[in-house]
Amino acid sequence: MEHYPNGKKVVIVGGGFGGLSVARALNGLPIEITVVDRQNHHCFQPLLYQVATAVVSPADIAWPIRGILRSQRNVRVLMTEVTGVDVAAKIVRTDSVSLPYDYLVLATGATHSYFGHDEWAEYAPGLKTISNATEIRSRLLLAFEHAELVSDEAKRRALLTFVIVGGGPTGVEMAGAIAEVALHALPNDFCEIDPRSARILLIEAGPRLLPSFPEKLSDYAKDTLEKKGVTVMTSSRVTDCDAHGVTVDGQRIEASTIIWGAGVIASPAAEWIGAPHDPAGRVKVTPDLSVPGHQEIFAIGDTAAINDRKGQPVPGIAPAAKQMGYYVGKLIAGELNGKPHPAPFVYHHQGDLATIGTHSAVVKLNLDHLTLKGFIGWLFWSVAHIYFLIGIRNRFVVAISWLNQVFTSHRGARIIALPDHVQNAKHADDIAK
Amino acid sequence: MEHYPNGKKVVIVGGGFGGLSVARALNGLPIEITVVDRQNHHCFQPLLYQVATAVVSPADIAWPIRGILRSQRNVRVLMTEVTGVDVAAKIVRTDSVSLPYDYLVLATGATHSYFGHDEWAEYAPGLKTISNATEIRSRLLLAFEHAELVSDEAKRRALLTFVIVGGGPTGVEMAGAIAEVALHALPNDFCEIDPRSARILLIEAGPRLLPSFPEKLSDYAKDTLEKKGVTVMTSSRVTDCDAHGVTVDGQRIEASTIIWGAGVIASPAAEWIGAPHDPAGRVKVTPDLSVPGHQEIFAIGDTAAINDRKGQPVPGIAPAAKQMGYYVGKLIAGELNGKPHPAPFVYHHQGDLATIGTHSAVVKLNLDHLTLKGFIGWLFWSVAHIYFLIGIRNRFVVAISWLNQVFTSHRGARIIALPDHVQNAKHADDIAK
Repeated sequence: MEHYPNGKKVVIVGGGFGGLSVARALNGLPIEITVVDRQNHHCFQPLLYQVATAVVSPADIAWPIRGILRSQRNVRVLMTEVTGVDVAAKIVRTDSVSLPYDYLVLATGATHSYFGHDEWAEYAPGLKTISNATEIRSRLLLAFEHAELVSDEAKRRALLTFVIVGGGPTGVEMAGAIAEVALHALPNDFCEIDPRSARILLIEAGPRLLPSFPEKLSDYAKDTLEKKGVTVMTSSRVTDCDAHGVTVDGQRIEASTIIWGAGVIASPAAEWIGAPHDPAGRVKVTPDLSVPGHQEIFAIGDTAAINDRKGQPVPGIAPAAKQMGYYVGKLIAGELNGKPHPAPFVYHHQGDLATIGTHSAVVKLNLDHLTLKGFIGWLFWSVAHIYFLIGIRNRFVVAISWLNQVFTSHRGARIIALPDHVQNAKHADDIAK
Repeated sequence: MEHYPNGKKVVIVGGGFGGLSVARALNGLPIEITVVDRQNHHCFQPLLYQVATAVVSPADIAWPIRGILRSQRNVRVLMTEVTGVDVAAKIVRTDSVSLPYDYLVLATGATHSYFGHDEWAEYAPGLKTISNATEIRSRLLLAFEHAELVSDEAKRRALLTFVIVGGGPTGVEMAGAIAEVALHALPNDFCEIDPRSARILLIEAGPRLLPSFPEKLSDYAKDTLEKKGVTVMTSSRVTDCDAHGVTVDGQRIEASTIIWGAGVIASPAAEWIGAPHDPAGRVKVTPDLSVPGHQEIFAIGDTAAINDRKGQPVPGIAPAAKQMGYYVGKLIAGELNGKPHPAPFVYHHQGDLATIGTHSAVVKLNLDHLTLKGFIGWLFWSVAHIYFLIGIRNRFVVAISWLNQVFTSHRGARIIALPDHVQNAKHADDIAK
């Protein structure tokens, strides 16, 4: 980073879609920008479910934040965990350094909410990070491996039962992808079990899947999943969850693999700054995305609670985070250049996309009220996602992995990574005696 | 698997190069083969150092064993851990099932030896498995991340000091690859530190690097590494090792990253069957690779101790394991077909290869006593390794990753995967209060 001793200091917490957009909008200004993230990488969350279902590798959809911002000379990147903010002294505290700021942008994202049952997290991981995805991949593949080994019929049935909680895009995509693993990728690989006998249950508390989509696309998604063998349970509520299964409206379902895609809760950013927040923990921002009483602090993306022009909450999706990031970046740049305060932030909803397995997707574009479904929807979805990936290598690798999967049903990344060097060391110890 | 109720039962423990060769040599026979491995994947160990240095992803060099053997109808694959062998009852015991056998092949590989100091394993991981490689990748990348954050000069120097113990192919390849990460991949990504100031020390107890190669290639490797900035310390012995550094011949070196490539110790297979073994734990096999006193049990690859025609130990490399596997498979097939016992196993050494960074390698081919070095050696090495990879997708992806690295110096897989869902759950718990 070039140093600008008299330049204003901007601290951006979070290297997701929102945080990166702020940094880019401030490119070229004589200021000192610090991007802080507890991970070293930006993760393309819309494709996490493909890591979880063994289509692509983590590195195909994640890039070091330093690499992405390498050419922007007024930025430095720090990998460290923020522990709090001193709003009076204007200092961000981390577990390593303290970072003074003139402007602070909180773009810290969200994690899963277990509706007051956080003990369920251990049994039903969500899908927000690379580690989540490789953990789910291991559980999924191990369930089939262990089913091959047991002879007890009830145990085998529980091992081959996969419960996905939440019928939003994540749940629909996971259910479709797991169905294809069971139906197409694995059947010829096992002897004792037939992977096609796997039960895949998608449980949604509301009356229909994909509530943000038009109703006919919800119906289409349900039909398509059911044709793939998924049992779709709408208006069904999970009331208990443990290591061996779930209880749905009082009915017990034994299942060794449970995946959580239901609720969302924001990061603790609101607590750091003592700001008012909604029940999901999102900072209630003012129309210019600043925090009430702190014109120098902004919250964006999943960290912010704000409504669109129709009075609907702005959704927690990548395009919303990017638009907010760009708005705040331009606002700060304008202030530094003495320009007048901009008009309030307006969210432009471009559409909704969700895949239902390899050859089908539902797409609703706001532009001209266009809806696409089936194979055409899937083609649109594929091109859009390849386009938004970062880097030539990743676009190539993901495209090859998808072609490989479409034409051969093979999954290229069926790796269960067990921690083993401790085990090895223990053995070496034994044999040395 | 097709069932052959009257067919002989062959149990192969280990899905590495040796075990897979046995299975393939028995293709088409009316017998029941079980391949047991505690991992679900076969790993192409010669490229593990490229996972550890962020060039390729784990799934690019590892494949599910079930997938590899999918089309062989007389094989089933079980993912489970072998706990012992009842040689009298002819049963392999695992932590899930018991496997009766008529023939048993032990192809269980080796791990690192810490020369009686197994407590060092925690501080200095070796490079034998996918988990080892991702662990080393995390340590390597985190060292630079943490160095960027500290202000204490001594701490920063320790964080930017990388010690590799052992001057065989693994040590040489790791030292060369880490030097390129520091010199080419990272310099533009950091502000507070200059990655080029990293110290990379390669420590070898013997008088020269790559002792299995001709002396002039050892010299060439040393020169090439030194030009890349690696400090090569031959005739130097590590006498202590802890979380903060090593002691070499009484001299303390502070280093936060230590990688072990020194000794090798076989799996506990010799203990399972109560067979005589050498100090490295390898079963002392007879000339037909069977275990003394048990003509139905064979040990191959890194599990076997046997000499070649010159009286030299057969080396623990992939071609040796493949040759032994093929020999044992054909021996068993011949016995089942009533053919006479074959001539003793003869090892054919094809040569030695080791890379020293992206554009250089040393190659010694036994065929016509040819030696190659430098860029020509590296081209030969690249083509040979792409050829031996399994699957079209993997060949494509690895080739693209190498081209990407050669032309841009970028590393495509710079991901530090921190376990974080527990952390997230804890936070969700906090905010819910």
